[in-house]
Amino acid sequence: MNVVELIIKKRNGLHFTREEIFFFIDSFTSGKIPDYQFSALLMAICIKGMDKKETSYLTEAMLYSGKVINLDKIKGSKIDKHSTGGVGDKTSLILAPIVASVGVNVPMISGRGLGHTGGTLDKLDSIPGFRTNLNLADYKNVLRKCGTVLIGQTKEIAPADKLIYQLRDVTGTVESMPLINGSIMSKKLAEGIDGLVLDVKTGSGAMMRKTSDAVSLAKLLISTAKSFNIKVIVFITDMNQPLGNYIGNWLEVKESIKVLKGETDGDLLKLSLSLAGAMIYLGGKAYSINEGKELAKQQIKNGAAFNKFLEVVNLQGGKTKFILNPEKYPKPKFVKKVRAERGGFLQAFDNHEIGMASLELGAGRKTLKDKIDPKAGIIIKKKIGDRVKKSEIIAELHSDSELKIKIAGKMILNSISYSNKKVTVPRLIKKIII
Amino acid sequence: MNVVELIIKKRNGLHFTREEIFFFIDSFTSGKIPDYQFSALLMAICIKGMDKKETSYLTEAMLYSGKVINLDKIKGSKIDKHSTGGVGDKTSLILAPIVASVGVNVPMISGRGLGHTGGTLDKLDSIPGFRTNLNLADYKNVLRKCGTVLIGQTKEIAPADKLIYQLRDVTGTVESMPLINGSIMSKKLAEGIDGLVLDVKTGSGAMMRKTSDAVSLAKLLISTAKSFNIKVIVFITDMNQPLGNYIGNWLEVKESIKVLKGETDGDLLKLSLSLAGAMIYLGGKAYSINEGKELAKQQIKNGAAFNKFLEVVNLQGGKTKFILNPEKYPKPKFVKKVRAERGGFLQAFDNHEIGMASLELGAGRKTLKDKIDPKAGIIIKKKIGDRVKKSEIIAELHSDSELKIKIAGKMILNSISYSNKKVTVPRLIKKIII
Repeated sequence: MNVVELIIKKRNGLHFTREEIFFFIDSFTSGKIPDYQFSALLMAICIKGMDKKETSYLTEAMLYSGKVINLDKIKGSKIDKHSTGGVGDKTSLILAPIVASVGVNVPMISGRGLGHTGGTLDKLDSIPGFRTNLNLADYKNVLRKCGTVLIGQTKEIAPADKLIYQLRDVTGTVESMPLINGSIMSKKLAEGIDGLVLDVKTGSGAMMRKTSDAVSLAKLLISTAKSFNIKVIVFITDMNQPLGNYIGNWLEVKESIKVLKGETDGDLLKLSLSLAGAMIYLGGKAYSINEGKELAKQQIKNGAAFNKFLEVVNLQGGKTKFILNPEKYPKPKFVKKVRAERGGFLQAFDNHEIGMASLELGAGRKTLKDKIDPKAGIIIKKKIGDRVKKSEIIAELHSDSELKIKIAGKMILNSISYSNKKVTVPRLIKKIII
Repeated sequence: MNVVELIIKKRNGLHFTREEIFFFIDSFTSGKIPDYQFSALLMAICIKGMDKKETSYLTEAMLYSGKVINLDKIKGSKIDKHSTGGVGDKTSLILAPIVASVGVNVPMISGRGLGHTGGTLDKLDSIPGFRTNLNLADYKNVLRKCGTVLIGQTKEIAPADKLIYQLRDVTGTVESMPLINGSIMSKKLAEGIDGLVLDVKTGSGAMMRKTSDAVSLAKLLISTAKSFNIKVIVFITDMNQPLGNYIGNWLEVKESIKVLKGETDGDLLKLSLSLAGAMIYLGGKAYSINEGKELAKQQIKNGAAFNKFLEVVNLQGGKTKFILNPEKYPKPKFVKKVRAERGGFLQAFDNHEIGMASLELGAGRKTLKDKIDPKAGIIIKKKIGDRVKKSEIIAELHSDSELKIKIAGKMILNSISYSNKKVTVPRLIKKIII
């Protein structure tokens, strides 16, 4: 097969066969197709699209570019959750221990932060000693012992996705339904799971800004999951403001601990309970999402969820003293308050900009070489619909650099708008698609 | 400016500003934008297009990526010709001496063969000793002495084009009007010319298979030339069969000598006279294309055209003994005849395939590293409309490899179709646009 002819085929809007898709995924993964040809192909796919069949073949080719983990020897169902990413979205850290604590296995392979969005892996790395780079044998061992495991993508898992993702990120080809679907599903299907709860974010801080796009992606993900015999539930949820109040790696671990200890409520708790409920339901430990939700609430109340978190942190080498006493964690050099420039009802965030401010403070990477400061981040004090007085504190910025705080402070002020009239809070869970 | 944002801009079908176009052309030429990003941008341009303004800015940016030659000190007008390429198209070798012989300067910077089409530069290289790599000082010297000069693209001329062209060739982004226009016009405008005759080919052996596409490209080229104050005439001509009868580098030089010596007629002579007429007219040495044509005829008849060819070959280091006595040129190891498998009227060539057969014989390159055999090629004995008897000779193949001749022979048989009824010959010159 000739690569240039395949590129031209898609450029002209034609459909690929299964063989053609396997050919270019395999050839790219093994280094036989150079980046400059593959990026032209990605752009053609991005603009001309792929039909359902092509999308399914693409996922399959990406999945089988690596190893598919077999968890058959581990008893009980295996359910994972995936979110399309957002600002302050730390539900993975909360869901894994809750769901594992009721006897549903949660094998979780997560990614790093990308652009304005955080990554579970970077959050876990902020826990001193925590090892996310387990090999597959240790991955299975930890899962067998405590019912959950939290690692990063290994070289064995969907290597095609890693290579393609890196290229998409720098070639303007991130926003493509079939490519997004392939990236998510190839990794998740490789985990050896029976069921998957998907959280597709929509709003100013999400990849899918429009709810209609989020629904289209959800439908594609469902059709792919079903074609691989994976049970699936998709939530379409709001990302027009940060989820919870803490943004930044250690700050998000801290907020997760608060949720697991039952010390907080609000949107983060609400969404976590719903997603946990769906996972427990898919795992067969509840007859409905609602029943699963009640079970999740109970596991927080009786301490089982928090204990499970301590257990998995300990098994993966993390120092539990910081989980038990988060106040012992190193402090940033500077903590500065951001005050409202005017009064009114908080009407909207440019949530993408909030994510970029957090990145500016050191919580994310601008280039692949940047080092993350786990202490850096933002605590949001006001959310959409809240009444704000002039000069009232709306956020708190954490960083080792005063200059970065100055820049991020301005970004945050610019990203918030106010109304003189009462504001309707955007619905947190917009849709559940089964 | 951010490259990824520019890629996304074009992906979404928006228009670039002049600054944006200069930014990405300059950055790519200086190596600041990697190939994999630029190829994604090229694909987005290829699919989403560019408007007239963007196309003109693109040409300008590519032109000024290098040096624009100043020929003001050389007396007389400077007129060049450019063809979009085809099979057996050797008119440059014929036009330069004819037109120079009437006192119109012809500074010609040519390219190498690409895909199934030949390149003037490879043809010139087949003349032993002929130097196509003159520097700009020598380029001007030869032009001043004899009124024409034939060289290859130097590093100083539109370096952006060279880099972009290489990338387009391997990324399925050749067929794009604004990119084709930019590539042709940036090189031609850099030559320091006053006027340009363009030969846009259409048919099975051309980049533009459909005449309507050829006309669209012609209009774009005219609008670009005019915006740079260059006089221009565009011919839309047939490429449904080889031009003339000889294909392959030395074979084409040989056929050009025949034309210059007045030893042949047919489509090659006809088109050469028309193009020469247009060049002479643009150069101010005739009041019309037709008058120019008559002048051209006369220069062949009186020997001035052939003598001019000898003069320029000599000035550029070529051994004129082979021009004076082409039969002294080294012979290929094998010359095999291809015979018709059936009788009838020759209805059509897959002219692209004829070009590929010539390449297979060694007359072109499959990869950049391939060495061309100047002796290799095809002599076509029958053309569209000719009556062919079964087993009659339709072509003669020249190569040092018997295997290659076998393969090429099959390709040629497959690329010709016959009709039982009389066939209309495609019109050679379909349109002249001024």
